Amino acid sequence: MKFETILLVIEVGGTLAFAMSGLLEAIRKRMDIVGVFSVAFVTAFGGGTLRDILLDRRPLFWIQNQEYLWLVIALALTAPLWVKTVRHRLMERAMEFADACGLGLFAISGASIASAAGMPPLVAVLMGVITAVFGGVLRDVLCNEIPKVYHDHRPYALCAVVGCSVFLGLDALGMASHLSMIAGICTATGSRLLA
Amino acid sequence: MKFETILLVIEVGGTLAFAMSGLLEAIRKRMDIVGVFSVAFVTAFGGGTLRDILLDRRPLFWIQNQEYLWLVIALALTAPLWVKTVRHRLMERAMEFADACGLGLFAISGASIASAAGMPPLVAVLMGVITAVFGGVLRDVLCNEIPKVYHDHRPYALCAVVGCSVFLGLDALGMASHLSMIAGICTATGSRLLA
Amino acid sequence: MKFETILLVIEVGGTLAFAMSGLLEAIRKRMDIVGVFSVAFVTAFGGGTLRDILLDRRPLFWIQNQEYLWLVIALALTAPLWVKTVRHRLMERAMEFADACGLGLFAISGASIASAAGMPPLVAVLMGVITAVFGGVLRDVLCNEIPKVYHDHRPYALCAVVGCSVFLGLDALGMASHLSMIAGICTATGSRLLA
Repeated sequence: MKFETILLVIEVGGTLAFAMSGLLEAIRKRMDIVGVFSVAFVTAFGGGTLRDILLDRRPLFWIQNQEYLWLVIALALTAPLWVKTVRHRLMERAMEFADACGLGLFAISGASIASAAGMPPLVAVLMGVITAVFGGVLRDVLCNEIPKVYHDHRPYALCAVVGCSVFLGLDALGMASHLSMIAGICTATGSRLLA
Repeated sequence: MKFETILLVIEVGGTLAFAMSGLLEAIRKRMDIVGVFSVAFVTAFGGGTLRDILLDRRPLFWIQNQEYLWLVIALALTAPLWVKTVRHRLMERAMEFADACGLGLFAISGASIASAAGMPPLVAVLMGVITAVFGGVLRDVLCNEIPKVYHDHRPYALCAVVGCSVFLGLDALGMASHLSMIAGICTATGSRLLA
Repeated sequence: MKFETILLVIEVGGTLAFAMSGLLEAIRKRMDIVGVFSVAFVTAFGGGTLRDILLDRRPLFWIQNQEYLWLVIALALTAPLWVKTVRHRLMERAMEFADACGLGLFAISGASIASAAGMPPLVAVLMGVITAVFGGVLRDVLCNEIPKVYHDHRPYALCAVVGCSVFLGLDALGMASHLSMIAGICTATGSRLLA
């Protein structure tokens, strides 16, 4: 497989994992179809949307790539078919893995977009973290809970910080851009899986 | 009456109905004057503001048409005079009617603005729904509740989806723009009133 | 001291006071380091960020002046050293004072930025209030509470309204801009301290 194909597979997997976590939370809260759709959308696209608004980038990524919208719609419409399998041990593992991949990829893509927009390293790291974390924060706000990432005492956001720093550091040292991205993604995703 | 006058009357009625629902919810939560103003503002203007931010349109509609701000201010200042009459059966009916009109008009205007900005149909429908629904979502978030529209199992947002689809479909078939708008508004508002 | 130096000192003090109030609230809610950072950031920068997004100003003020980011990071990292002293009577007083200064300065700077962007007086006052108040609103939303400013029946936001009105009024009467700013800040901060 080519590099771009791998990235695309990870990105789709990450988006699906994020959307699924929103969808499951909405179902757990006994929301109706409107709530399930909204929370799934917001969890999957909230972080990237906030990043794009803060950096003033338009069109938003999910407007430019409508396939992601259709993907989440398909996921929500087929939820009755698969939602019970999620409790299975294997499925849970798969979701955790996809979520960790999503964390890594969303963080590095956020940092790389900010960096390409001329942002200094501190802001680029911050944008990476926002991209990776804010969808889940909005999910919890809409579900009327304190954001899980703020009080679960697990190094979710810190993995994003470390991954973005590795990426920006290697990039500053002159490493080829796709290699430094892979290193950053592996750091964030790997530290997440090990933690 | 001319077409524009009718649209204006509906729009003013819808804005007032949305602002009133925010105001009543704030009073129910025993908020003070600051809370009542804020929640009324956010309920009336939140959906359209999010749409404009996502599409990067400026100036925002309530900055360009300050009369709406004054309208909501007048509503909040005179609240002590009319707030008790809302419990009357007739007033409740009038508010439900105004709310349904607001739903229809806000949805179609959102979809039409997005469509005019070159957005594809899926995004235009989404923008219509956001315009019609998101003010109420923000109201409930500020009042520390799960958004009502997410779990009341009533087809509020779906009426907006159907209305926007009718409008965009007729528009694509080449119908005159104000006729397709009226059809879309009537579909959304009508299905809401019947449901 | 020069005028600019005084403004800068107040601004830094206000930012620190706002960040501290977020940080303390996050600790009270037993959040972890991620939550403490996020809530402190959002409380300090949320109001000004919303103002800049509504007015479409970029780069955002905390991206242009990264020192503020470092300031909040330093505050959060050193929290274990000073957080217990906050309960002391003197420290509480100092925080109240800094918070009132922050209110005045954030409100007037918001109104002045909006006014310079060509906004009419009503919108400028609104932007001043949003700048001063919205960080605290977001803090409370993230902490899953009804915003304190909405139901504490204390004239927090009204002090901002009065201060902004004084500033804009004197400005319209042709007073030198830094004098009308000082008058506005003193009005907002003073009325807050007296209330």
